[in-house]
Amino acid sequence: MPMAGSLAERTLARPAFEAAFAAPAFVRAMLDFESALAAAQAAEGLIPADASRAIAAACKAIEIDVEALVAEGKRSASLAVPLVRMLREKVGEAHGAHLHRGATSQDVLDTAMALCLKPCLEETDRALEAAVRSLARQAREHRATPMLGRTLLQPALPITAGLKVARWAVALARDRERLAEAAEAGLAVQLGGAVGALEGMGECGPAVRHRLAMALGLADARAWHVHRNDWLDLLGRMAQVVATAGKIARDVALASQPEVGEMREAPPKAGVGASSAMPHKRNPVGCAHALAAATRMPGLLAIVHTGAIPEHERALGGWQAELATVPQMADALGASIDFLETIAASLVIDAPSMKKNLEAHGDGVPAAGLAAATDELLADLASYLT
Amino acid sequence: MPMAGSLAERTLARPAFEAAFAAPAFVRAMLDFESALAAAQAAEGLIPADASRAIAAACKAIEIDVEALVAEGKRSASLAVPLVRMLREKVGEAHGAHLHRGATSQDVLDTAMALCLKPCLEETDRALEAAVRSLARQAREHRATPMLGRTLLQPALPITAGLKVARWAVALARDRERLAEAAEAGLAVQLGGAVGALEGMGECGPAVRHRLAMALGLADARAWHVHRNDWLDLLGRMAQVVATAGKIARDVALASQPEVGEMREAPPKAGVGASSAMPHKRNPVGCAHALAAATRMPGLLAIVHTGAIPEHERALGGWQAELATVPQMADALGASIDFLETIAASLVIDAPSMKKNLEAHGDGVPAAGLAAATDELLADLASYLT
Amino acid sequence: MPMAGSLAERTLARPAFEAAFAAPAFVRAMLDFESALAAAQAAEGLIPADASRAIAAACKAIEIDVEALVAEGKRSASLAVPLVRMLREKVGEAHGAHLHRGATSQDVLDTAMALCLKPCLEETDRALEAAVRSLARQAREHRATPMLGRTLLQPALPITAGLKVARWAVALARDRERLAEAAEAGLAVQLGGAVGALEGMGECGPAVRHRLAMALGLADARAWHVHRNDWLDLLGRMAQVVATAGKIARDVALASQPEVGEMREAPPKAGVGASSAMPHKRNPVGCAHALAAATRMPGLLAIVHTGAIPEHERALGGWQAELATVPQMADALGASIDFLETIAASLVIDAPSMKKNLEAHGDGVPAAGLAAATDELLADLASYLT
Amino acid sequence: MPMAGSLAERTLARPAFEAAFAAPAFVRAMLDFESALAAAQAAEGLIPADASRAIAAACKAIEIDVEALVAEGKRSASLAVPLVRMLREKVGEAHGAHLHRGATSQDVLDTAMALCLKPCLEETDRALEAAVRSLARQAREHRATPMLGRTLLQPALPITAGLKVARWAVALARDRERLAEAAEAGLAVQLGGAVGALEGMGECGPAVRHRLAMALGLADARAWHVHRNDWLDLLGRMAQVVATAGKIARDVALASQPEVGEMREAPPKAGVGASSAMPHKRNPVGCAHALAAATRMPGLLAIVHTGAIPEHERALGGWQAELATVPQMADALGASIDFLETIAASLVIDAPSMKKNLEAHGDGVPAAGLAAATDELLADLASYLT
Repeated sequence: MPMAGSLAERTLARPAFEAAFAAPAFVRAMLDFESALAAAQAAEGLIPADASRAIAAACKAIEIDVEALVAEGKRSASLAVPLVRMLREKVGEAHGAHLHRGATSQDVLDTAMALCLKPCLEETDRALEAAVRSLARQAREHRATPMLGRTLLQPALPITAGLKVARWAVALARDRERLAEAAEAGLAVQLGGAVGALEGMGECGPAVRHRLAMALGLADARAWHVHRNDWLDLLGRMAQVVATAGKIARDVALASQPEVGEMREAPPKAGVGASSAMPHKRNPVGCAHALAAATRMPGLLAIVHTGAIPEHERALGGWQAELATVPQMADALGASIDFLETIAASLVIDAPSMKKNLEAHGDGVPAAGLAAATDELLADLASYLT
Repeated sequence: MPMAGSLAERTLARPAFEAAFAAPAFVRAMLDFESALAAAQAAEGLIPADASRAIAAACKAIEIDVEALVAEGKRSASLAVPLVRMLREKVGEAHGAHLHRGATSQDVLDTAMALCLKPCLEETDRALEAAVRSLARQAREHRATPMLGRTLLQPALPITAGLKVARWAVALARDRERLAEAAEAGLAVQLGGAVGALEGMGECGPAVRHRLAMALGLADARAWHVHRNDWLDLLGRMAQVVATAGKIARDVALASQPEVGEMREAPPKAGVGASSAMPHKRNPVGCAHALAAATRMPGLLAIVHTGAIPEHERALGGWQAELATVPQMADALGASIDFLETIAASLVIDAPSMKKNLEAHGDGVPAAGLAAATDELLADLASYLT
Repeated sequence: MPMAGSLAERTLARPAFEAAFAAPAFVRAMLDFESALAAAQAAEGLIPADASRAIAAACKAIEIDVEALVAEGKRSASLAVPLVRMLREKVGEAHGAHLHRGATSQDVLDTAMALCLKPCLEETDRALEAAVRSLARQAREHRATPMLGRTLLQPALPITAGLKVARWAVALARDRERLAEAAEAGLAVQLGGAVGALEGMGECGPAVRHRLAMALGLADARAWHVHRNDWLDLLGRMAQVVATAGKIARDVALASQPEVGEMREAPPKAGVGASSAMPHKRNPVGCAHALAAATRMPGLLAIVHTGAIPEHERALGGWQAELATVPQMADALGASIDFLETIAASLVIDAPSMKKNLEAHGDGVPAAGLAAATDELLADLASYLT
Repeated sequence: MPMAGSLAERTLARPAFEAAFAAPAFVRAMLDFESALAAAQAAEGLIPADASRAIAAACKAIEIDVEALVAEGKRSASLAVPLVRMLREKVGEAHGAHLHRGATSQDVLDTAMALCLKPCLEETDRALEAAVRSLARQAREHRATPMLGRTLLQPALPITAGLKVARWAVALARDRERLAEAAEAGLAVQLGGAVGALEGMGECGPAVRHRLAMALGLADARAWHVHRNDWLDLLGRMAQVVATAGKIARDVALASQPEVGEMREAPPKAGVGASSAMPHKRNPVGCAHALAAATRMPGLLAIVHTGAIPEHERALGGWQAELATVPQMADALGASIDFLETIAASLVIDAPSMKKNLEAHGDGVPAAGLAAATDELLADLASYLT
């Protein structure tokens, strides 16, 4: 089996997120769409129950030749065209005509995209929860640990380590809420047919779509083939998580400079952060991943916004660009999650170094109110501190 | 007074949105911040009531030399530094020390930015409402007007004009909801002081911030100087409006090609859409504005996301980039609103041309279900159709 | 072997370009670097000839476990760290210490990136040449074929089909020149060692680097690990090719609308441009690919520019983002090349339709000067018309 | 006169660059185009000499009402339409018909854009030269000053301060060359008429264009209204200068952290870098400007690339987006130049701090070869060291 995907990119990817959009998962998502569509249509009496069963069986049994799928998909600018053809052959003549009834390529592909993104978002939700919990605990522990506040990379007034970390945690908790909210609307089934109006299913189109959504665990929604802002909103909120992780990584990396020495993403560990030129060195690898992700995400977000100006009832080029870009966005999100897991597990806060820098470069001690300000943030995090 | 701002850019801007961030309005917003801050602090007993009154009077009376403000602001990379200095001179020695108490430059500037954006969003809300109302009415009227559906710029199955227009309207209505929701969280006061912890106001910091927010008509919120995702979310939703307007403009412009001839953004009108080389020509000017905005917005959104990875307690560069970019985003939004107002007032739908093209290039008539599909969308728009 | 890379992305990729950055090619490039480095160092007397031979043999014989490489590379944020470790084991104790002498991870990875990009650019050069040749011939043939010129999607004055196509050809020819020029400087060897100063090779560092460059077929250049503008320039010029192809695709797609009917990217062909919902339909698939590429490229270019602000002697995050993005840029370039090959082989120009539209929507005939203007452009293309 | 342009943006702008695109300069550039065009056409016998003189006189005498120009320009999506109308009135009936002969709006606007950008690039060239000279001298002085090399924000092997600074200088010198080269092709006259073929000037079109170019000090070039890659190339190279300045600023800002203390952009100076909250503080203002510019530029570059996929013989939206974006790019370049002037005048290098950090966090002294490596770079800079 030939390798696909650039190797260098893979070093930045979280394996589960990479797998989520790789051929086996994506093909599976497309087959799930076809199988669930047939079942929904059978339930509504649009196609015979026998056909639905034959389609389900074929979807289960078929082994897709991925290289053929890609080559043929390239010729039609759509993976769905060859997939339906291959699947129809497998289903056989008796029932093949009932397959993909009233659906169009974009229905399969958009739904598959949502299905592939879904586990990534579930994993993100869990990782965010764990990161907030861990950071909130650290913030509570260090609510009164004095350190230098810094603005424009120069010393400002003192803060506490707890305040800094509590801010990270509150930001992540808020990102988590927003992401969950957007996922509810954005992870929706796409079903519209040739021009998006369910025109091929008569009166029971909406009912079929609803059954399909329920079967696939996605939201039921009007066709979003050309008005994609719920989906863009979700992608934008993924970008917000990446930005917050990038901000935390920037802070940690700056604090890890040996002249500063106030934080580390993790205690030194064999094999992590090794350098090929300097064996003694330990690089802040998690920070590098999160900052690389934060560098990539804005440009990727620009691409999906640029692509979202489709022509008439289906885009020529813009939507296709999105298909290639969403997996990249998932990769960037995955790298950020990797980093958040690292610091959730093992962020090191060096209070003595903080004290030393504060004495050397700051004036005064943190205002009495700072621990209180930290407590106020911690109150927002109460549900994470149980 | 020297002119500022690039001339070419101004041709694309909506005057009210341009004015919202121009010197008079921005200076006024900064002065409003200082005045309301003093009033809030006096109410909480932090500064004398006399000082608050003197500050309010000075904020009212002062005439800021904008060129001096800009020149000095450049040297400190902050407009707030010279503004506070100038204002303190005006307030005079007796009360000057009470000015800007516990605040920092970013507090003034972020709050001013939110204050300047606010009327733009209110105007956007009104314009979106009007556009949805108008388009919904057109959709209802043309619910059964057959036309060619087109995908990848090729004929697909027939649709109705009502369906197409109803989709635009539903998308705009949804964008409007989302924008309003984001504005509620994103148009927030910024007050944090040197390191964002209200450390200069003792225990009454949160109460001062709350009073300040109420006085300025902004949401009360924890300092967002370094964790800016509520703000980014708002900017992202502005971008969604621009994308929808761009999509509609693309459709209208394509439909306005004389070979197609199905729509026009407005009936021909003297002076609008004139060409310097071909006096007889009428260009789709509103579409040009909306598509230019849609071309600009994704890159601008990328900039604010890139800038949102700040160092420690205040960014070096990233935030400053945002200050220059948000007014551009408002301009792009304004141009989109201009377009939406144009089509709300005078979109021309040419049913006979639609019929002709459908007969020439399509096969069949719209499925019976299409008018029903349109009605389903219109039901979503019921509140706009009263 | 697990699949990597998102499936949807692959439908847009040119197989040869995709393969250029996939695991086998990228690993081979890294091994070629190590092997040629050892040979160069042996030639300069830095390491024993025996060691160089042993390293060359190991590079030839080793079978890299890609999944292990990726997993370990992730832990060090560098593929080079595990590659060198694995290779050192293969070389054995006697000579292993001579491997990778004075080099650092970025040396291996940047050089590998250049090596992988090189065949893509060579293929691009050939495809551009062929496209210019073919378009120049079509332009000559249609130098006096009248058609409607169109501005802002409205009829303007008449032009000739030859003029339009000659412009495309001249633009591609100029892009080709510029790309070749940039490739000369940008496809350079990277060799600098830990801090980029060849500090581990004494006086013969530059000589080693020169030998390495010659052996690998790359330009010799000062270390560009942190000042990457020659490389960015090359990537920017790739983006220019994609933009020109996108412009041509937009023109062809607009001209392919049946109401216009003046051009097609190719005559109808079984299996190409098929639709999963409408078997009779033929989509302009090449245009879709080129326009998708043109949608992606600007955001990708923004990413590599954003990443090019590295910290000190090696970036934290920005450079790593580039490693993931350059293969995407190659993919976008590849999709553009696919499109150019399609139109070079089979662009259809429909002169009667052009005449009909001109008569219906234009006034007058093309100015006498237009064929002359076309000839002037054709003169620039003389070398392509032999 | 109402103010235009966002105030916050102006704090980041270099006054001369801001002025270059403001109304007086842009109107002047458009008038210069019309005046020089008439003169060129008179010289070629296309229009009477009297008409040319009358046009020149009108261009000199006219006072344009900028607000009316903007308002009317908005209605036609082109500043040139009202300008020509106003100017034609001023010229009077006798000769007015000879004005703007054979030209179109985009001719005026693209040429004006090039004319406005030209002095910015000349100033950039001078500033780059001065910065390279100054940095080269500092590099020579510190060729053997040891300091810590740092990769991924962690200590790597030692380097010399001279090496670091020489690298900056070489990068800027190379950027300067590349920019000058691109300006030669990119700062070109635009003259094509309604469909870009000089169709309104008969056989003497190219001669008129040549005269026009010479008169305006621009390159003569085929119409680039829709194939804009020479211009994009120039904009891309401006972005490269901004990236290099951003990289230097990042290094200086990191070195200015008091815990590091190795560099400052300038000695402390009254009023520069002041904080509104902490009077004792000195912010690295030049670095903030350069980093803000480097944050903005990639997104702006993405916009002009996105806009460069025009429809047929003139774009609908994409080109208009560029008109608003190029002045922003000039602003970002200007801010970078400001920073480079600051460090050219007064970069502080603190050799004792470098020594201290090296001893505390590095191991060993710089390799003997490092001063030689610096000398090698200095040799490249020989012409700047005289």
